[in-house]
Amino acid sequence: MAKEITTRGENYSQWYNDLVIKADLAENSAVRGSMVIKPYGYAIWEKMQAALDKMFKDTGHVNAYFPLFIPKSFFSKEAKHVEGFAKECAVVTHYRLKNAEDGSGIVVDETAKLEEELIVRPTSETIIWNTYKNWIHSYRDLPLLVNQWANVVRWEMRTRLFLRTAEFLWQEGHTAHATKEEAQEEALRMLDVYVDFAENFLAIPVIKGDKTENERFAGAENTYTFEALMQDGKALQTGTSHFLGQNFAKAFDVTYTSKEGKEEYVWATSWGVTTRMIGALIMSHSDDNGLVLPPKIAPTHVVIVPIYKNPEQLEQISLKANEIKKQLEAKGLTVKYDNRDTHKPGWKFAEYELKGIPVRLAIGPRDLENGTIEVARRDTLEKSVQEINSIADHVVGLLDAIQQNIFNKALKFREANTHKTDSWDEFKEILANKGGFVLAHWDGTTETELKIKEETKATIRCIPFGSVPEDGKCIFSGKPSKQRVLFAVAY
Amino acid sequence: MAKEITTRGENYSQWYNDLVIKADLAENSAVRGSMVIKPYGYAIWEKMQAALDKMFKDTGHVNAYFPLFIPKSFFSKEAKHVEGFAKECAVVTHYRLKNAEDGSGIVVDETAKLEEELIVRPTSETIIWNTYKNWIHSYRDLPLLVNQWANVVRWEMRTRLFLRTAEFLWQEGHTAHATKEEAQEEALRMLDVYVDFAENFLAIPVIKGDKTENERFAGAENTYTFEALMQDGKALQTGTSHFLGQNFAKAFDVTYTSKEGKEEYVWATSWGVTTRMIGALIMSHSDDNGLVLPPKIAPTHVVIVPIYKNPEQLEQISLKANEIKKQLEAKGLTVKYDNRDTHKPGWKFAEYELKGIPVRLAIGPRDLENGTIEVARRDTLEKSVQEINSIADHVVGLLDAIQQNIFNKALKFREANTHKTDSWDEFKEILANKGGFVLAHWDGTTETELKIKEETKATIRCIPFGSVPEDGKCIFSGKPSKQRVLFAVAY
Repeated sequence: MAKEITTRGENYSQWYNDLVIKADLAENSAVRGSMVIKPYGYAIWEKMQAALDKMFKDTGHVNAYFPLFIPKSFFSKEAKHVEGFAKECAVVTHYRLKNAEDGSGIVVDETAKLEEELIVRPTSETIIWNTYKNWIHSYRDLPLLVNQWANVVRWEMRTRLFLRTAEFLWQEGHTAHATKEEAQEEALRMLDVYVDFAENFLAIPVIKGDKTENERFAGAENTYTFEALMQDGKALQTGTSHFLGQNFAKAFDVTYTSKEGKEEYVWATSWGVTTRMIGALIMSHSDDNGLVLPPKIAPTHVVIVPIYKNPEQLEQISLKANEIKKQLEAKGLTVKYDNRDTHKPGWKFAEYELKGIPVRLAIGPRDLENGTIEVARRDTLEKSVQEINSIADHVVGLLDAIQQNIFNKALKFREANTHKTDSWDEFKEILANKGGFVLAHWDGTTETELKIKEETKATIRCIPFGSVPEDGKCIFSGKPSKQRVLFAVAY
Repeated sequence: MAKEITTRGENYSQWYNDLVIKADLAENSAVRGSMVIKPYGYAIWEKMQAALDKMFKDTGHVNAYFPLFIPKSFFSKEAKHVEGFAKECAVVTHYRLKNAEDGSGIVVDETAKLEEELIVRPTSETIIWNTYKNWIHSYRDLPLLVNQWANVVRWEMRTRLFLRTAEFLWQEGHTAHATKEEAQEEALRMLDVYVDFAENFLAIPVIKGDKTENERFAGAENTYTFEALMQDGKALQTGTSHFLGQNFAKAFDVTYTSKEGKEEYVWATSWGVTTRMIGALIMSHSDDNGLVLPPKIAPTHVVIVPIYKNPEQLEQISLKANEIKKQLEAKGLTVKYDNRDTHKPGWKFAEYELKGIPVRLAIGPRDLENGTIEVARRDTLEKSVQEINSIADHVVGLLDAIQQNIFNKALKFREANTHKTDSWDEFKEILANKGGFVLAHWDGTTETELKIKEETKATIRCIPFGSVPEDGKCIFSGKPSKQRVLFAVAY
């Protein structure tokens, strides 16, 4: 192996960290809780951004950019919002440094203190709704469908690369509507866009539903979520879409004149996904050899490795390899030909397994004679020998099959790890020993929800959409319940 | 007119502000010195990003992301760097807010004070070179060709939309090389990429050259610049590329083992362009009717406006208009068909002139009968009647002509406003009354440079590349000089 990683069986958490570091995705920085996203990790983010940005634009949204800093007073305007974010924010208090008078270095210049402190945005509802006040006057100005790609800061105490960092990258959609119905439709439309992206690009099957009141976004009337199950049986919330009602419109006094000439408050949504998705991607599909990337999100689809004993052989192989590279590129694929003479083929094989390149082609002198080529797929590690003449078509078909297989495998895993129980003992036993999703009855109160969390660490991930109404008794309190909800221990 | 703007003749500065606001490009935010980039302004930035990002990748660069925050102590490590940036930076001192005990609102929680203050990045050399220390060990790790798209903050006291804002968006390239020659080549290569972009995408002719020592980036051994002339005769620095020598490698102790087994300090470059380019774009080409956008950077290339008296006419026109739209889109163009019945054609014409859409097509019932269509080009405001059957080809050719014409016009303006003088009185007279670039002799000292600035407000924009050596006397001191340098009053 090029670089050893801990196996999942030994220590899942260490396996994840090893993988992130050794596959060159990200690393911790000198700033507590902030990561450096390395070029390979960032290339995955760029693929995610490109696919999502297109989906946002196809559904009528435009991008804009709002300030990084939010005046402190803005936070006070929406009561729940400030409660949710005040405890974890970076505060700018000064705007100048100076040389210390005792020559000991540079210090904050106390004469350059801000009159009002600025908060580094943890999310932008407040600054955006303060701006929308001037953009919205009439029903003709609605709907306003805006998205922002940005960095945000939440002062998390316990951080993990991609999953929970003080600074992260994300997109945040902020839309304004004339009616409640339109805003609710928008929040659900964007949830569906996310689900489509998660399942068809990331190959991660997700369960969508409502968050309970306790798990809602600070300032939302309703939060829609989509939840995925990781290989260690823990859930991961991949993104959320919020119906904000008129809360922010009222906090920032944003009204519009309706067709009928009446002054009304505007209805709002917001929705976001973050670099956390890279963590979800890793934990859903990867194995003890390294990353497994779905082809639709892999920065490089195919790597070609030459097998040779002398420069003459390499020269001949390179001719053929470059020809194949061109054929594949003509099909819209990204291809790397690794002809470095500083590393052996075995080292390269391990390296590209670690990096999760979906398809590896190997070609040697014997192949040239026979008109064949060795094809290895990353997801199953299966190898086969193919005709060199039809290799481009073969690879295109194989990439589709890999994308589908990765999704199917994750779906199968989720199905095998989704339990239904009506017994509190079994509920505890599943969560303690097996993990996974547990569908159980709940009495609908925050009190019970919190007690269950206290005893099992499990939270209600969502109240799944479209589940069949079913009379039952709350798993914890025994009180009547009309529907099962989805429990899990979560990241 | 849809929205009145001040003319350039009346008040150039007011014209600029009016245009930015009324064409919906950007506006001031509630945060002092920070702007909101509105969707139309951001769409222009996205076009710039896409073109530049491709050029960076074509020259072998990859993107990554480094932390927003920089520990204060990092700044002290490169002496000139801290001197250049300490006076204008936002400082994070706390990480929590709380409810005031007297119930007056939320206040900074003094118990959550950071041990070491964090600076919101004004530029990322320090945090990046601190990271590179762990990435670079051997000559095999070089060159390292990394770019970052990010927001940065410099606490400017006097701000103007796009031209000078406390927060702005930019890209910053940071490369590491084994030799001085390679690093110098890289700095010049990226300068050429920028010049290519400025001239062939933004249609802004630029003069490239060295900055004087006094105008260099804080921490650079050499700064290369490209300078453009705005319509009011002031210069605008559009971007810079720096050869950083071994300054940051030494400050952060970044060494590599050479092929010969020797431990050597790494050589560096950095280079960046910002949302300021949008300001340059506006001030180079726009007129009293609004924006003039070069087709290669215009978010929308063509707008089609129907001219009709009743719904039946609109229906017929729409059939044809949508057909034309498809034909144009098949040629890779972005087209808007504005069939809103809430606004008259005259209003729409003025609106799209204001927004700088390069080509406007108008089509009415008479056109349908005659197989014709009216074509208006934004740059010259000329109208012509064209055959409807060949309109797609006509528009493609016209867009090329517009791109070229906008560049030629700006070049002609610059040539007409570039003066050469050997007389101090004339030098002052030109700068006071005409403005523009002035090529004059300079004795090479910072002392003279600063005195000239004091008396005329003009700075040395650059020492142009490839200028013919010429013996002369410094315009100010009369001391001997070997070359003319480029003076102007600058933004």
